[in-house]
Amino acid sequence: MNAHIITIGDEILIGQTLNTNAAYIGEELTKIQIDVIKSSVVGDNEDEILKEFKSCLNENDLVIVTGGLGPTHDDITRTCIVKFFHTELIKNKEVLDDVVNFLSKHGRQISKVNEDQALVPKIAEVIRNELGTAPGILIEKDNKIFIVMPGVPFEMHKMMESYVIPKLKDKLADLDYSIKITTLQTTGIGESVLFEKLGDLNELLNGGKLAFLPSQFGVKLRITVREEMEELANNKMSEIVQRIRGKVGRYIFSNEDEPLEEVIARLLRERGQTIAIAESCTGGYISNLLTNISGSSRYYERGIISYSNASKVEILKVNEDTITQFGAVSLEVARQMAEGIKSISGTDIGLSVTGIMGPTGAGIDKPIGLVYIGICDDKVCTAKKFNFGDDRIRNKQRAAQAALDMVRRYILGISFDE
Amino acid sequence: MNAHIITIGDEILIGQTLNTNAAYIGEELTKIQIDVIKSSVVGDNEDEILKEFKSCLNENDLVIVTGGLGPTHDDITRTCIVKFFHTELIKNKEVLDDVVNFLSKHGRQISKVNEDQALVPKIAEVIRNELGTAPGILIEKDNKIFIVMPGVPFEMHKMMESYVIPKLKDKLADLDYSIKITTLQTTGIGESVLFEKLGDLNELLNGGKLAFLPSQFGVKLRITVREEMEELANNKMSEIVQRIRGKVGRYIFSNEDEPLEEVIARLLRERGQTIAIAESCTGGYISNLLTNISGSSRYYERGIISYSNASKVEILKVNEDTITQFGAVSLEVARQMAEGIKSISGTDIGLSVTGIMGPTGAGIDKPIGLVYIGICDDKVCTAKKFNFGDDRIRNKQRAAQAALDMVRRYILGISFDE
Repeated sequence: MNAHIITIGDEILIGQTLNTNAAYIGEELTKIQIDVIKSSVVGDNEDEILKEFKSCLNENDLVIVTGGLGPTHDDITRTCIVKFFHTELIKNKEVLDDVVNFLSKHGRQISKVNEDQALVPKIAEVIRNELGTAPGILIEKDNKIFIVMPGVPFEMHKMMESYVIPKLKDKLADLDYSIKITTLQTTGIGESVLFEKLGDLNELLNGGKLAFLPSQFGVKLRITVREEMEELANNKMSEIVQRIRGKVGRYIFSNEDEPLEEVIARLLRERGQTIAIAESCTGGYISNLLTNISGSSRYYERGIISYSNASKVEILKVNEDTITQFGAVSLEVARQMAEGIKSISGTDIGLSVTGIMGPTGAGIDKPIGLVYIGICDDKVCTAKKFNFGDDRIRNKQRAAQAALDMVRRYILGISFDE
Repeated sequence: MNAHIITIGDEILIGQTLNTNAAYIGEELTKIQIDVIKSSVVGDNEDEILKEFKSCLNENDLVIVTGGLGPTHDDITRTCIVKFFHTELIKNKEVLDDVVNFLSKHGRQISKVNEDQALVPKIAEVIRNELGTAPGILIEKDNKIFIVMPGVPFEMHKMMESYVIPKLKDKLADLDYSIKITTLQTTGIGESVLFEKLGDLNELLNGGKLAFLPSQFGVKLRITVREEMEELANNKMSEIVQRIRGKVGRYIFSNEDEPLEEVIARLLRERGQTIAIAESCTGGYISNLLTNISGSSRYYERGIISYSNASKVEILKVNEDTITQFGAVSLEVARQMAEGIKSISGTDIGLSVTGIMGPTGAGIDKPIGLVYIGICDDKVCTAKKFNFGDDRIRNKQRAAQAALDMVRRYILGISFDE
């Protein structure tokens, strides 16, 4: 099945809004092995929209459109659908009820404009909107599928999850095979080393497919299995995951699409453990990640951003002589920072980071990207050296990811060595 | 002039990479009043690329392509150009020198693959790449302009800035008019209030154009002036900016595209002032922003993320009774936090934030989104109440922006009142 994604909206064309919708839809379709051939953005302009509908539906089996379904004068997608399919709008009772319920839940009365949102092209199937007032629609014609959803990301995601993807999977199931996808997220290991450690891929995958998706946060391994029977596909997926875990399990922090800080939050909550963090070069980035998660006060006690040497000495009780002898960016200072933050906050775990993020600040033996991370509990206190890259912001991200991974390894009893 | 933006690359289609290039180019073209009609993404596939080249160049005056210019087998854009324009590749001495210099600067020898990057379509003008090895190219034919640049964002940005935009401006200058664009960034005022305060727009703009671009960080005002003579355009722009500043000047933090934290960093550096920050609900986000800027250790001394009440009392010397009486989220605690952080760090300014970010944690008189921000110097200590929204992450961003704006107003002597 070939797909084309159309995004409608001037705000995307002029670069005011990033096209996250096309990226999301592209990713979801790829996961179920639908080939995304092209993606395009057109403005709120009837001629351009109609021209795009025509050329896309001619050449592809599936067209997914987002945007231009709202209630204002700019929103002309529905009008374009009516013209394009030579159909008419009819009032849909179910949608009207949804709109009324949605508005009353938010303490609002229905207006004429809202009422009109229940007008749906006659030949369309409705995709209900649980999180807003504009319904999505699906039209099947000449063995082709045409889907339109609102451009508001969370409304569209919900429709994709609960309706579009299951529907498309059903269609694919008609084709007599079952597709399973699992994403294993790794960190602390480069793409090439990971590739080497996995060994012979044909043997490992036994007909399945594997994609390496690297970023500064680690390498995601996306495994896709396609079999005639669902049970066969499930079994094969389990076998592949087990074999991969056997080879590189210690680097895998999740088999879902969650960031590492959510994994850490869950591990700490499950174990009733608490953490406090002393950050120097990451400047609060790690604490910010952990406190982005609702309920973080249950495990996150406090953080010190000890940017100056004075703050390291005064608050964290780092020994002044240690700084003079080894420098603020050193294994010894990282260890004392972790010890200090744990001791003053009374948490189970103390975590620390000190390093040189660049572009300035490098010394003779201390290049940009040099980072030490320390971790302490009641019994043990240790620190580890890392060498990251040249870019300040990426260095902050990589240091934060490495620090959180030390916490994961600590909690799960995995060695800090490679 | 009508434009079409083409992005080439499977990684964009499958949603692995966000299409920031198209957004950047769309924004830059819009600034110089070139109409972006459409934007499309195609994979690394010769047929699709050629088809797209054809349909775009037929219908537009300007086509800008990024991606697929690298040295590996996936990178087929150059081959497609040769086929599309019925031209041939010839070795370009200037590009070869650039590649050799670039590689030797990075301590690398030139390989056959690199040498081939100096092959340029015969009919093309070269756009030199100061930051990488793949040159960009520009082809003018039948009054149409076709530009191709590498997909690496910082390489492409540099080419746009130093070559493409000036070149396009020249072309537009041939059309006998001059365009000036200024963006005024405001914060601490909503779009509708801003609109009201500006009064009669026709009178204000005298033929110029004004766009309101709102986000959680504030509202940007983009002013565009188009006159026959450059001097006239400059004069009119100055007049408009002056009139806008007369009405809403206190809310304007920059007339460039820089974030507020860069403005604060500059103000602090210029005045030789230092700051320390006590964050509760923002969890390190403000410190992270300020330390994203290189050289931040000159003005940022330390930060305390006083998430627990214990940390507020122990480190910041907040009075325990004050917390009991007014709650941790209160004007009094914000003030004491700012006083405490200033006092322990010895900086010129102490800044503090305490609030309820949601989705949990609301109390009877304390709704989600309630935030107090405190600021102290040697003489004065004050705090202010804010009410933001429901979303945790956006609340963090809005609180951080409001806190940084308090620092800006403090330094510039602008009242904290609306």
